Amino acid sequence: MTYPVVGMVGGGQLARMTHEAGIPLGIRFKILSDTPQDSAAQVVADVTVGDYRDLETLRAFAAGCDVLTFDHEHVPTGHLRALEADGVVVRPGSEALVHAQDKGVMRTRLAEIGVACPRNRIVADPADAAAFAASVGGFPIVLKTVRGGYDGKGVWIVRSPQDAEEPFRAGVPVLAEEKVDFVRELAANVVRSPHGQAVAYPVVESVQVDGVCDTVIAPAPDLPDELSAQAQQLALTVARELGVIGHLAVELFQTADGRVLVNELAMRPHNSGHWTMDGSVTSQFANHLRAVLDLPLGDPRPRARWTVMANVLGGDYPDMYAAYLHCMARDPAVKIHMYGKDVKPGRKVGHVNTYGDDLAEVRERARHAAGYLRGTIDE
Amino acid sequence: MTYPVVGMVGGGQLARMTHEAGIPLGIRFKILSDTPQDSAAQVVADVTVGDYRDLETLRAFAAGCDVLTFDHEHVPTGHLRALEADGVVVRPGSEALVHAQDKGVMRTRLAEIGVACPRNRIVADPADAAAFAASVGGFPIVLKTVRGGYDGKGVWIVRSPQDAEEPFRAGVPVLAEEKVDFVRELAANVVRSPHGQAVAYPVVESVQVDGVCDTVIAPAPDLPDELSAQAQQLALTVARELGVIGHLAVELFQTADGRVLVNELAMRPHNSGHWTMDGSVTSQFANHLRAVLDLPLGDPRPRARWTVMANVLGGDYPDMYAAYLHCMARDPAVKIHMYGKDVKPGRKVGHVNTYGDDLAEVRERARHAAGYLRGTIDE
Repeated sequence: MTYPVVGMVGGGQLARMTHEAGIPLGIRFKILSDTPQDSAAQVVADVTVGDYRDLETLRAFAAGCDVLTFDHEHVPTGHLRALEADGVVVRPGSEALVHAQDKGVMRTRLAEIGVACPRNRIVADPADAAAFAASVGGFPIVLKTVRGGYDGKGVWIVRSPQDAEEPFRAGVPVLAEEKVDFVRELAANVVRSPHGQAVAYPVVESVQVDGVCDTVIAPAPDLPDELSAQAQQLALTVARELGVIGHLAVELFQTADGRVLVNELAMRPHNSGHWTMDGSVTSQFANHLRAVLDLPLGDPRPRARWTVMANVLGGDYPDMYAAYLHCMARDPAVKIHMYGKDVKPGRKVGHVNTYGDDLAEVRERARHAAGYLRGTIDE
Repeated sequence: MTYPVVGMVGGGQLARMTHEAGIPLGIRFKILSDTPQDSAAQVVADVTVGDYRDLETLRAFAAGCDVLTFDHEHVPTGHLRALEADGVVVRPGSEALVHAQDKGVMRTRLAEIGVACPRNRIVADPADAAAFAASVGGFPIVLKTVRGGYDGKGVWIVRSPQDAEEPFRAGVPVLAEEKVDFVRELAANVVRSPHGQAVAYPVVESVQVDGVCDTVIAPAPDLPDELSAQAQQLALTVARELGVIGHLAVELFQTADGRVLVNELAMRPHNSGHWTMDGSVTSQFANHLRAVLDLPLGDPRPRARWTVMANVLGGDYPDMYAAYLHCMARDPAVKIHMYGKDVKPGRKVGHVNTYGDDLAEVRERARHAAGYLRGTIDE
């Protein structure tokens, strides 16, 4: 048999769910995990424990793989280039992935290809940030470290020159952006293969709470067809122009005047696509694997009128098993996805998917299950 | 966290697909596999290689598990009883499982609880088989070894006294059954938990070719509601009366005069339930795990009007990867499930699921994909 070996760098829940999707494909799947206890390391047969920041570790891992892909964006860009120079098949490649690693590079490139973004520029210090604020109509503005942020970390809403000091303390370049007066956040998810084949999932609404994704509604309710098509086209354009291989999540702001602006990019399976596990014909994880293997892509169409995903965050109780049993008894159709992670307050430890014809009911079922698991709902 | 550990004896495709279903449940899943290359051993994180016929091997494996369950029926009944005497939680238990291990015990018990079966009795030798034939209207009859058969092995259609000699050669007791004049084969699949909760899947039609399951159609077309309900009720009765825990497949003959007779029982996930992976809200694998863990069971309802499963058998070409790529390109919505097994002619190496509103089209898509993978269709 010539079924290929896919190596994924990272052992988090994205690698765990990618393994789940890879089993029916018949491929071999390996991970490079930080520890033997990581979410994916608990369920994957072939686990290498090692540090992705070490080039020789990456080289040894890649030697056993037909293609290398990623559960996160943190592998140093120089290491990716070194692996490519060795002849390793890296997907997405370093030339694409740098746009998901460095927000400054991403903003520059999106401007070049004419994709609308919030106004932005790299700022040198708090005074420069204040000057940028003045140029976009004043505070508040958003400051971001160009590398290393996720789930609201590395992002500051800055309301005054004094507020602007903290982002510079890490010594990482800082990007300033106008604070967009958006009506909601959307995500346009696409998958692209080396052949140039691409599929677009329905555009979803992403509801954030405290900078962390709380709920995703697929498709985004009341989104005009024209704006939906525009957002999908935008994501396909970004995927093509940046040479993305695999899953690309484009997080968007929908503005009051009916435009979409790019907030962030991720070049891997993404939280805004977890609904596809139960809600579409082919999940983002299966399509990511098909793309990095240059297999024909799977049908991205939805299977239900509405699918809602709610993240399960850790609460005060370390043991969720009893709550989980209760949720199964209350709603035999709720799809619970646990990640095998220790519960810590605010940590993403799982998600639930619900689907059906009535959005209010579908959303309430997801809200209840996620809240009950977290411990914020007790009935 | 108190997520339990499920140990499954066996490393075949059923264990592989059970692992896939266990990942979102957040549980730990271990297997006892014959070799490190077995279908499930390729994808499961925690694999013990050992011989299930050895009681000490079973004891050591069970020591690390909260519950023990099975991918096949071949563990000796005495070993199951010994494990239970040790305090191991065995699900289904030996008292239930013996009915799926020994066709003689099964027939006796089903008669006791009033479940309709083909006329049958244990026969001592070819002459006794001929006497049985005379009592049911003459040859042909069916002879079966009471233990060890599967996929048509251990089953003979006997057309004359001379034909009746081979089944006795193994020295295993032989069961004689009337050859039922059936119009088609059905399967009624149910799942039952220690709480006594049970769910019934839609009754399916199972199309056999050369004694091996070829296609499953869910639900069985043109099955009168009354007969469907009767078949589901029959399976629920068998599950309750025999004390089955986990998935129970009841293979049935539908007769020309509108009755159903029990052909075989299996107390594990079953080929006739593979359609549920893509065709129902909760798959047979997820519900088997929920049952053996005494978790509330998941919704068994279908997600599409029609779902068709077709087995992929090995053909003349050992490498299916190119064919598999072709199938994905031709039909982006076909769901291919490969088992990681070496291709041998006639061996089950995977299955495909298709679903939709038009049965003829759904069935043709499944037939084409399975045939193309096998190499019997070349367009």
